[in-house]
Amino acid sequence: MQSIQQTFRVDYSYKVFFTRSLFNPSNPEFRNYLASQVTQGLTKKLLFILDDGVAKAHPALTTAITAYLQQIEGFKIAGDVILVPGGEACKNDQELFYSLIDQIDGQGIDRHSFVVAIGGGAVLDLVGMVAAVSHRGVRHIRIPTTVLSQNDSGVGVKNGVNYRGKKNFLGTFAPPAAVFNDAEFLTTLEERDWRSGISEAVKVALIKDAAFFEWLEANAQALVKNDLPVMQELVYRCAALHMAHIGGSGDPFESGSSRPLDFGHWSAHKLEQLTDFTLRHGEAVSIGIAVDSVYSSLLGWIDAAAAERIVRLLINLQLPVYHSLLDTQNGVSSAVIKGLQEFREHLGGRLTICLLKAIGQGAEVHVIDEVLLNKAIAHLKVNYESI
Amino acid sequence: MQSIQQTFRVDYSYKVFFTRSLFNPSNPEFRNYLASQVTQGLTKKLLFILDDGVAKAHPALTTAITAYLQQIEGFKIAGDVILVPGGEACKNDQELFYSLIDQIDGQGIDRHSFVVAIGGGAVLDLVGMVAAVSHRGVRHIRIPTTVLSQNDSGVGVKNGVNYRGKKNFLGTFAPPAAVFNDAEFLTTLEERDWRSGISEAVKVALIKDAAFFEWLEANAQALVKNDLPVMQELVYRCAALHMAHIGGSGDPFESGSSRPLDFGHWSAHKLEQLTDFTLRHGEAVSIGIAVDSVYSSLLGWIDAAAAERIVRLLINLQLPVYHSLLDTQNGVSSAVIKGLQEFREHLGGRLTICLLKAIGQGAEVHVIDEVLLNKAIAHLKVNYESI
Repeated sequence: MQSIQQTFRVDYSYKVFFTRSLFNPSNPEFRNYLASQVTQGLTKKLLFILDDGVAKAHPALTTAITAYLQQIEGFKIAGDVILVPGGEACKNDQELFYSLIDQIDGQGIDRHSFVVAIGGGAVLDLVGMVAAVSHRGVRHIRIPTTVLSQNDSGVGVKNGVNYRGKKNFLGTFAPPAAVFNDAEFLTTLEERDWRSGISEAVKVALIKDAAFFEWLEANAQALVKNDLPVMQELVYRCAALHMAHIGGSGDPFESGSSRPLDFGHWSAHKLEQLTDFTLRHGEAVSIGIAVDSVYSSLLGWIDAAAAERIVRLLINLQLPVYHSLLDTQNGVSSAVIKGLQEFREHLGGRLTICLLKAIGQGAEVHVIDEVLLNKAIAHLKVNYESI
Repeated sequence: MQSIQQTFRVDYSYKVFFTRSLFNPSNPEFRNYLASQVTQGLTKKLLFILDDGVAKAHPALTTAITAYLQQIEGFKIAGDVILVPGGEACKNDQELFYSLIDQIDGQGIDRHSFVVAIGGGAVLDLVGMVAAVSHRGVRHIRIPTTVLSQNDSGVGVKNGVNYRGKKNFLGTFAPPAAVFNDAEFLTTLEERDWRSGISEAVKVALIKDAAFFEWLEANAQALVKNDLPVMQELVYRCAALHMAHIGGSGDPFESGSSRPLDFGHWSAHKLEQLTDFTLRHGEAVSIGIAVDSVYSSLLGWIDAAAAERIVRLLINLQLPVYHSLLDTQNGVSSAVIKGLQEFREHLGGRLTICLLKAIGQGAEVHVIDEVLLNKAIAHLKVNYESI
């Protein structure tokens, strides 16, 4: 019997830019980036897809984009800026997905063109998937507009849409061509969106960086008071930790089951689904962090004071730390707990959950003790339900 | 302005096995491969998807697969072997695509399970895409059953489905977990399928390996007489050249416009589409090779005798070298020629066509002279239409 071994590597590289008012004519960032992508003799197309919530909050944006692009050689906007509804619902909408594929087709977007998505994490996920499967992958630029997408999902390598109610059942790993984090978009966020994005920063601090956790404690007041420079620092530090993990983990496309960045996420995903996404992702993650932190303390991995300190930070950030859907019902574990099995399947094979060895240090387990978990939930209910 | 540079590499590796009667209990290849994929304490699932044409030609196959798998620890078949219609039509069928996604969901296939596709290139393309986007990529094993898929598409890294009549408009680059080329499947191919797969061998010989071209000339008689050992050697050599190009090109996922393996393919894709896929891919490629070889000679890159030798080999292999759809109509270039523009878009940006500098040596051009191209077509019509 003969065989041939195939082996190759692929290099991936992209930059995340931190800026403000990206399409202000005096801001050179986007122009400079495009200049680095020019090919002599070619006019490359840019297909803009914009979250309609962002368009409403920034009514001059479409005009600004068109004006900004007019000055740039070697590029042109393909058609009109396309508006899509924002929020998780856009990832459930198969018709919308194919209407965007039709735009790629109709506008003649090829593998040297760029699809530019401006919006929250859901829109970026949707458009990223559209770009990743069209012509086996067209380049896409992400312009995240929420705290959550600027510090976490938008700077990473995943995309996805939901299928039959299952979050991100369809998706790929497809690094963006570039990411532009524009702080201006943060100024028009609803309170809930401003705050809920902070939970991913708490998460990454807890598993990676104790000093960042302390910084979050020291700056919690400024954050809830909408201090933009403090938020910009948070976004930068959180994005840097997130990206360092992806680039340095040795498994950027998650071929194994280890996903420390999913700390606090197993229950969060299920809570989002069970609340029909009325709970924001970041709010669900905050609850998930609280649960897994208290569980870590009941396991004896961190002391009770550390768990209390974590929960207290979340509360100071005005984030939720408990949800009644977590409760046992007549002594039977809740549907959230039962969601562990689904999470195992999504990971593949072996349950792998990140817990805390210390503030700033995650560690994995492969078994969750349901009795202890319900105890952690009861602890949160008794102490924090009324907050 | 701040920025963060993300850089990482991903290593890809898979083996292509050449064997016969893969699911015969005495054949250890598949068993050995699975043994290398065991994870202690886990039972991994295998979801089999089978081309119904193959199932008809090998009625004992499904039973053989089930029996073979029963002996193997650490793995189990998920549900029944799923039958799908073979041929290009399966790539146009969005309902079929989602029914396979439903199987992934319903059978609880996770990122440690395997989707095993058995069939011709179209089925492998379809199933490869299904696997690539489910859970952001589940492992897939390819068992190609035609000459074409065993020596070319099945050993590579692409998948795809058609969209609104556009071939492979949706797809990804997703290396398989493993490929098993089982020569037994070649024994039941229709004459047309046996022969048409040979054109990819002629193609890769022409751009990469003059000695292989001479071997094809020497073995043309044996090949048309269905000599299986000779065909097995052809498949092995062609697959090896194809894989060496992908692994050694420095651009396995085709981020640039250079695609030497697409020699002869620009007109082939269009001919397939215009004939509603009644022309086999390999037949269309044979015509495309003839066109681009004669065009290369009219450009002065190869001499007329070399072009004649190439066309003669294709004819000796009982492959077509001309199609009336190529003809100018009242002095206007055919729709095939007009397909160059579409091919440019699919490539992205710049037209890049591989031609021949010599037998065994491809080289690229970025401009095609339409007058000369029509002259090449007229040459084929005058000399070979009646053959």
